[in-house]
Amino acid sequence: MKRIFDMIASIKPLDIEAMERARVRQQQLTKPPGSLGRLEDLAVQIVGITGQLLPAVERKAVIVMAGDHGVTVEGVSAYPSVVTAQMVHNFLQGGAAINVLAKLAGARVVVVDVGVATDVQHPKLVTRKVAAGTANMAAGPAMTQAQAIAAIHVGMDTFEAQRVQGIDLVATGDMGIGNTTAASAITAVLTGAQVAAVTGHGTGINDEQLAHKIHVIEHAIECNRPDPGDPLAVLARVGGLEIAGLVGVILEAAAQRVPVVIDGFISGAAALVAVKLCPGVRDYLIAGHASVERGHRLILDHLGLIPVLDLGLRLGEGTGAALAMCIIEGAVRTHAEMATFTEAGVSDKE
Amino acid sequence: MKRIFDMIASIKPLDIEAMERARVRQQQLTKPPGSLGRLEDLAVQIVGITGQLLPAVERKAVIVMAGDHGVTVEGVSAYPSVVTAQMVHNFLQGGAAINVLAKLAGARVVVVDVGVATDVQHPKLVTRKVAAGTANMAAGPAMTQAQAIAAIHVGMDTFEAQRVQGIDLVATGDMGIGNTTAASAITAVLTGAQVAAVTGHGTGINDEQLAHKIHVIEHAIECNRPDPGDPLAVLARVGGLEIAGLVGVILEAAAQRVPVVIDGFISGAAALVAVKLCPGVRDYLIAGHASVERGHRLILDHLGLIPVLDLGLRLGEGTGAALAMCIIEGAVRTHAEMATFTEAGVSDKE
Repeated sequence: MKRIFDMIASIKPLDIEAMERARVRQQQLTKPPGSLGRLEDLAVQIVGITGQLLPAVERKAVIVMAGDHGVTVEGVSAYPSVVTAQMVHNFLQGGAAINVLAKLAGARVVVVDVGVATDVQHPKLVTRKVAAGTANMAAGPAMTQAQAIAAIHVGMDTFEAQRVQGIDLVATGDMGIGNTTAASAITAVLTGAQVAAVTGHGTGINDEQLAHKIHVIEHAIECNRPDPGDPLAVLARVGGLEIAGLVGVILEAAAQRVPVVIDGFISGAAALVAVKLCPGVRDYLIAGHASVERGHRLILDHLGLIPVLDLGLRLGEGTGAALAMCIIEGAVRTHAEMATFTEAGVSDKE
Repeated sequence: MKRIFDMIASIKPLDIEAMERARVRQQQLTKPPGSLGRLEDLAVQIVGITGQLLPAVERKAVIVMAGDHGVTVEGVSAYPSVVTAQMVHNFLQGGAAINVLAKLAGARVVVVDVGVATDVQHPKLVTRKVAAGTANMAAGPAMTQAQAIAAIHVGMDTFEAQRVQGIDLVATGDMGIGNTTAASAITAVLTGAQVAAVTGHGTGINDEQLAHKIHVIEHAIECNRPDPGDPLAVLARVGGLEIAGLVGVILEAAAQRVPVVIDGFISGAAALVAVKLCPGVRDYLIAGHASVERGHRLILDHLGLIPVLDLGLRLGEGTGAALAMCIIEGAVRTHAEMATFTEAGVSDKE
């Protein structure tokens, strides 16, 4: 607990002075002022995060946290729990969407077993299993407070290991059958929204199964009575190990002044917990995309984040964040590499 | 004229059978069906365009057509005409936004002088000047029919030269001070919209200048009386040499079954002319992004195209299309490179 709060205390506001200088530079580049739209805002934000006028985006990583969910015994998902471990294996073999899209973005993929129910062995896997999945939150807390904290530590350690290797931009990803159920529960409690307003079809359940999923989440919240003012308790009681891991990644990245690209609903729920723990974290976040999962837009609105992409994705794994990394790299590269009016000998506005 | 109509006659519908096979493959990849959203649609479209089940997107080019506009003497732009040539030089030196973003997308930049008013010399420039800018459309036709046809031929030849080098995906770009005025005029005539509904601030004129720009365009349409049923005549009378060049690029790409990524308002106006000349061209187009220029959304709605990106861009040059190329490459690569459920040993839906 102390380690987490010490880190939170070290998270600083963005460098306003550097951002002002970045805005001046944007006005000098060979284009009409403002004509690169969101790209200009992203460049200025990343200057503010890093404190560097010409930041780099060379070294990139997608951190995929994987964990299982006890609540799947309630029949909330279209796929069986065993798919979590199978997909982790697929990530490690390079066959999943996140592998293809991270490669496109020039990002390495780091896969962490923070709570997969079954045993997964692979030389490339970061094995930091806190528990073999969460407990069924419809029958009691998903995690103990100690487990949630341990999983946050795993995220912090994972980011730190990446920082040592060198990292300019990090994206969050997830794998965990049942984890939209946990994300919906967290979102409902922390935003005060109705469960039905933040619960979607996940990997592809039908309307009848959706009604059941909503009922299970409502029951889980009733039975666990998480205090909305205590985000760690909410995370422990109705969250997930991989979501807690991502909270740790997000907090540590902000503490180290590295921009964080948030993926979809699961990453969004982790971002929500992180911002509730430390509101200053919000400025370090870039919403990679808007997921089809209805709860995700509510999270983005609640955090005041505008998604970079809106492509109808609902896969998770970090896929939307990896795609957004390409756009973000475009933002930082135009900022750094374009010629100014003076350099290019181009006439400015009449 | 005959050359253009022969080419149009050779444009074929998409390969429906290949698209059906692509949809089957998408269902077999290790992800919930439909969870890659727009990426799945883009992959299926490109399979239909190319007729290849696993199409490549290795070889990419942004073709930037540059030309000047006589109508700038009416004071419709925030920048002087000389900036067209200066920016062409900037493109050739690698200092413009399109250079940075094309490099990010792995695309070569091909710059064509189809009608720059001043002399530009550079070893990398494709010099195919049809005229030293258009005539002032507020005082008569911008081009003769022969000039418009010659400029379309330049676009066809430019695409053909790229095809010989090898090209899997082409993006359209433009440079021409005053060209939002021409694009607004084309859009108003071909869609039947009010001039005020399709005219925006371009590179950054104020509201008073915008009112004047609208008046100039209305006057140009009145004075030239272009027939909405004759897209070539519309292009000649109120269009531009670079817009005509892009019409040629788009038509030739469709004829050669290469997908075309359309940039913003200027490219959109060219696409509108191309689709009016040959409705089947529409299926070969991917709208790279939605421009801030109000007329652009109207074009996209009119053509039934959904933009890949919406980033508040209004720069032109092909910048939005180049950024979209990254997403499109992600679509084609996930389609081609992801493992299937069987290959990865992942359980399908329960």
